[in-house]
Amino acid sequence: MNGISYQNPSPFGRLPILQVSPTVEAGRWPAKAYVGEVVPFGASVFREGHDALGAELLLTAPSGSESIHRLSPGAPGTDRWETKVLIREEGKYKFQIRAFGDDYETWHHNATVKIAVGVDEELMMLEGIALFKKAAAEKTRSKANAKLLTDIAKVLGDSKLTAKARLIQAESAEVQAAIAAEPIRSLVTLSETFELHSERERAGVGAWYEFFPRSEGAVFNAATKTWSSGNFVTAAKRLPAVAEMGFNILYMPPIHPIGVAFRKGPNNTLTAGPQDPGSPWAIGSEAGGHDKIHPDLGTEADFKLFVRTANDLGIEIALDLALQASPDHPWVKTNPEWFTTRADGTIAYAENPPKKYQDIYPVNFDNDPEGIYHEVLRVVNHWISFGVKIFRVDNPHTKPVAFWEWLIAEVNRKNPEVVFLAEAFTRPAMMHALGKAGFQQSYTYYTWRNTKWELEEYLKELAYDSAAFFRPNLWVSTPDILTEYLQFGGPAAHKIRAAIAALASPSWGMYAGYELCESVARPGAEEHIDSEKYEYRPRDWQAAEKSGKSIAKYITKLNQIRAAHPSVRQLRNIEFHHTDDSSILAFSKYLAAENSPTGKSDAILVVANVDPHAARETTVHLDLAKLGLPYGVSFEVTDLITGQTFTWSADNFVRLDAFLEPVHVLKIGKVI
Amino acid sequence: MNGISYQNPSPFGRLPILQVSPTVEAGRWPAKAYVGEVVPFGASVFREGHDALGAELLLTAPSGSESIHRLSPGAPGTDRWETKVLIREEGKYKFQIRAFGDDYETWHHNATVKIAVGVDEELMMLEGIALFKKAAAEKTRSKANAKLLTDIAKVLGDSKLTAKARLIQAESAEVQAAIAAEPIRSLVTLSETFELHSERERAGVGAWYEFFPRSEGAVFNAATKTWSSGNFVTAAKRLPAVAEMGFNILYMPPIHPIGVAFRKGPNNTLTAGPQDPGSPWAIGSEAGGHDKIHPDLGTEADFKLFVRTANDLGIEIALDLALQASPDHPWVKTNPEWFTTRADGTIAYAENPPKKYQDIYPVNFDNDPEGIYHEVLRVVNHWISFGVKIFRVDNPHTKPVAFWEWLIAEVNRKNPEVVFLAEAFTRPAMMHALGKAGFQQSYTYYTWRNTKWELEEYLKELAYDSAAFFRPNLWVSTPDILTEYLQFGGPAAHKIRAAIAALASPSWGMYAGYELCESVARPGAEEHIDSEKYEYRPRDWQAAEKSGKSIAKYITKLNQIRAAHPSVRQLRNIEFHHTDDSSILAFSKYLAAENSPTGKSDAILVVANVDPHAARETTVHLDLAKLGLPYGVSFEVTDLITGQTFTWSADNFVRLDAFLEPVHVLKIGKVI
Repeated sequence: MNGISYQNPSPFGRLPILQVSPTVEAGRWPAKAYVGEVVPFGASVFREGHDALGAELLLTAPSGSESIHRLSPGAPGTDRWETKVLIREEGKYKFQIRAFGDDYETWHHNATVKIAVGVDEELMMLEGIALFKKAAAEKTRSKANAKLLTDIAKVLGDSKLTAKARLIQAESAEVQAAIAAEPIRSLVTLSETFELHSERERAGVGAWYEFFPRSEGAVFNAATKTWSSGNFVTAAKRLPAVAEMGFNILYMPPIHPIGVAFRKGPNNTLTAGPQDPGSPWAIGSEAGGHDKIHPDLGTEADFKLFVRTANDLGIEIALDLALQASPDHPWVKTNPEWFTTRADGTIAYAENPPKKYQDIYPVNFDNDPEGIYHEVLRVVNHWISFGVKIFRVDNPHTKPVAFWEWLIAEVNRKNPEVVFLAEAFTRPAMMHALGKAGFQQSYTYYTWRNTKWELEEYLKELAYDSAAFFRPNLWVSTPDILTEYLQFGGPAAHKIRAAIAALASPSWGMYAGYELCESVARPGAEEHIDSEKYEYRPRDWQAAEKSGKSIAKYITKLNQIRAAHPSVRQLRNIEFHHTDDSSILAFSKYLAAENSPTGKSDAILVVANVDPHAARETTVHLDLAKLGLPYGVSFEVTDLITGQTFTWSADNFVRLDAFLEPVHVLKIGKVI
Repeated sequence: MNGISYQNPSPFGRLPILQVSPTVEAGRWPAKAYVGEVVPFGASVFREGHDALGAELLLTAPSGSESIHRLSPGAPGTDRWETKVLIREEGKYKFQIRAFGDDYETWHHNATVKIAVGVDEELMMLEGIALFKKAAAEKTRSKANAKLLTDIAKVLGDSKLTAKARLIQAESAEVQAAIAAEPIRSLVTLSETFELHSERERAGVGAWYEFFPRSEGAVFNAATKTWSSGNFVTAAKRLPAVAEMGFNILYMPPIHPIGVAFRKGPNNTLTAGPQDPGSPWAIGSEAGGHDKIHPDLGTEADFKLFVRTANDLGIEIALDLALQASPDHPWVKTNPEWFTTRADGTIAYAENPPKKYQDIYPVNFDNDPEGIYHEVLRVVNHWISFGVKIFRVDNPHTKPVAFWEWLIAEVNRKNPEVVFLAEAFTRPAMMHALGKAGFQQSYTYYTWRNTKWELEEYLKELAYDSAAFFRPNLWVSTPDILTEYLQFGGPAAHKIRAAIAALASPSWGMYAGYELCESVARPGAEEHIDSEKYEYRPRDWQAAEKSGKSIAKYITKLNQIRAAHPSVRQLRNIEFHHTDDSSILAFSKYLAAENSPTGKSDAILVVANVDPHAARETTVHLDLAKLGLPYGVSFEVTDLITGQTFTWSADNFVRLDAFLEPVHVLKIGKVI
């Protein structure tokens, strides 16, 4: 727009482009993605009047390679345009949306409408000739494309043919393909440039298992009434079974020395006996702090071997980063400024007045930020040097968000492969802020979303609203959380919760004992009785398997389905289908062939009875388009849990008995 | 945070401050306000852990004066903080949100909880002494405030008193007031700076009336079968009645010469007779274009006098800015490049293929942007020189958004008092974009929102979601729109629609004849029969008044209520109340004394039966807090339409008969 000087510092371009997505607070932080993720890109693009419009995504990969992706119009009236792109590289992508007047489409629409009623026929031919000639002369247009357009311009001028016959040639499949490949653009307008931060697949996709290494191989000597702790050598024996179940991340509570002062006894009692191992989260003793291994668990060499053994089985090790200290932690002597000193000169322990937690000194990040920030960075780098690439961060919402933003950026600058999981069960603003600050993933409210309605609402929020900055990891249980639903729902509840978590979210997790359906709570609490946090808890896995009390084989199937189906390893592609029953949840995951890493389309449909106490019947009403199927077809489905095959169509009767199999996991097969 | 170098270019501050409001796309455009508007400011502010937090708005007025407004926490769990500020100046405000650790509140909470159970009593005294002493030493603290804190520190050290007695002194009203005035802040964090663009009151508040000046005083001579047109002299005679009804803006369709070529006849027929005046929107003839007055309407001197007469009556004149030309427009000869030339050399008329509008040449803004942009600016400035400060823009969504952004910025740079109203009935993205581009206000979908549910949803969207960039002007009718609701709803429908428009929105408007309940449509259309767009339409106002067919007195009352009650002249303060009937809508407007321009609190409650064909009964359930009333009280209400007085409380029986008075407009009186 030569000669027009805009006074406004942030004007609209010639064609408005607004609400570009995925973005986080209009670009204040980069949006998140992971390698293998199919990311929806979009924008509100519109123009004055009735002429046709086109929109494109200009994507620059971390390697520097540039690609152009045409956007399609979304729901009518919304002016949203969108496309999906399979992200293949790790690093920072840059992207812009480009809008343009689609001059071919404008002409084609007008010519079609007018020629149909015999109006302005020769004029439309002339307009077409001018359009194609001008386009053919564009310097950037390929020669073959330009030749085709020149030829069509000649056809349009051939008055021996009817206008209709000439139009048919100008709208041939060949011409449409050529124009699609190299549109005839006018009024080209670019959006601002935004960033997409793509991380390795494990940042977004993983099946997590949690165990306490001290429990695996712990032995109680009934004669001496003493315990011998499990350790990295005995715990390593459990790794093949974890791998066999299909888990690819093993998370262990803190492996550091445990304080003696004010150590907690069984069930969080205030006095520990000499045989009580204490909570692993009370970190630090004379044996050392966050950079040391609890002597009972073994040596640094033992830990290295444990990590290597796990890796060889396809399992990564996730350590706990719990930034707090027992009163016996070395920091208390070397750097008392990293804690809060009270007015009486004593160091402040954790409190929620009037409650006192005297076994824990919270870290103060404001007295000596340079010191404590770099000490934590040193600790993290120390464990990275052991091959650890994943950290589960304990209670990050009790530390400054700015600290996490600094730490994660510092770590990822040298080690972009390192993943941090935020264990923040708090208000949404803080949970979201931690994602924006850089946490690769986060625990969620999933354990407290148990009804169909709650699940639909929550899964939509996670997949549609917050996916650009908040990657959910759906844990079915933790050592801290044993919900009423699991306490009283038996194996059916355990299957339902695992199936939904494993198939709705690309990251899910469970804590050892879940496969045994351990579900006895401390009376009145939402927590296991005799919590493993304060006690050794060896389990006889083989006996459980033999007695039929284990659902390990069910868990294994879920993880096999995840491994075999790329559609399931996506977050943003979840779609819900209507069912007539208030407890039968139906959702699907679909990847079109062009967005699938395998090059083949993939669709999984999950129909779950979320009532663990009854058989439920309903009709499931499928939106076939969401499964990549044409309107009105019948097709084969195979239940990947039972192996049964059915013929389904848009409306299907379903009976799910919680006491048999509460969940259908259906692979969509061929159209009949 | 000395010594910590952040790698991330846009880090969180020490205390997160997110989603500051009012902002438009994170600050890409300034938010809108008008003088006299009470604007809610807010942000998501939160912190790690359990310590107390404070938040403030730092506001810099256009005059440079700075003020600090403490924010209050919003709904629990949301981490939203908010305050409301009465905007008094015109121009660009700048604002930031400041978050801080509220050290007094943290100490006070901990001390209260601990002393209640006799724990750490002396320690809390010591902590308090340290806190007050440190605060008293702050350089910016006033001397009186510092002395008070020093005195309290001494009291806390007085071991002759119990801890509880000392705490009581440290939490006295005097201390709390001093701390509120000068908080004890730590970890102070500032948000980015955002802009609020405050315009004159008429940008946001106005009662609009529309008439065709050629109709006012037009006379048909039955003998000669000829018309003599109304003009500015005869139309001026209608102005006192318009002012009497309480309107303060008069909008007239284009007053320019009307083209002859392809002139439209009655009811939009294709052939006009010699007595047909044509559509005022077919602008331009041999008599001139957009900068000329139709010879039938009078001279420039007549127009000047008309503007002055209106102004003297408290009415501003709004002209129509319709950027299109009849084939007879001078631009067609002088600047054919401002239109589109087709391939056959002819100038393109308006089309929606295959429909043709040969009486209209659309302007092309891309051939010679510098030329056409500046020509439009010249035209606008020309009319500004006649004292016109308001323009109603015809179909702005058919011109480039970037053009409007340029034009409005250019005009407002020299004449910030000029107001543009966008007549865009199109998709939401474009309507919102025009607001962001600078339009001071916009027509809305109000005419098509007639049920209770539709009205609640739509009014909430206008008041809560889009108020920062889109100022609604609720027109009850236009020469183009006569909805089914009005066609068949009679005087009741006309009263209901006017009452809701006038009281729900600070800007509303009606087109002449609405007060006569003119409601006969062209068969099958949503438009008046014998539309005034194509014909003279003189009305006998006095006869209508005498025969009781006019609702002008009702309209007058509505505008009187608007004039008397500042709460009604606000957009964002609307609140809805539950009623048990699906057709009885209840909403209120409330201004607290501190935010009221009068210095007195003001509350109006509207209860409307939106069913114009029946009497409806219901219980209205009031949220008394939204009316500034305490829980559980009874209070006087006066119906400002009927003058009746009632005693109301939280739940009230209401009967509204559409054939008597369909709407209660209740002034909240004194608590009984």
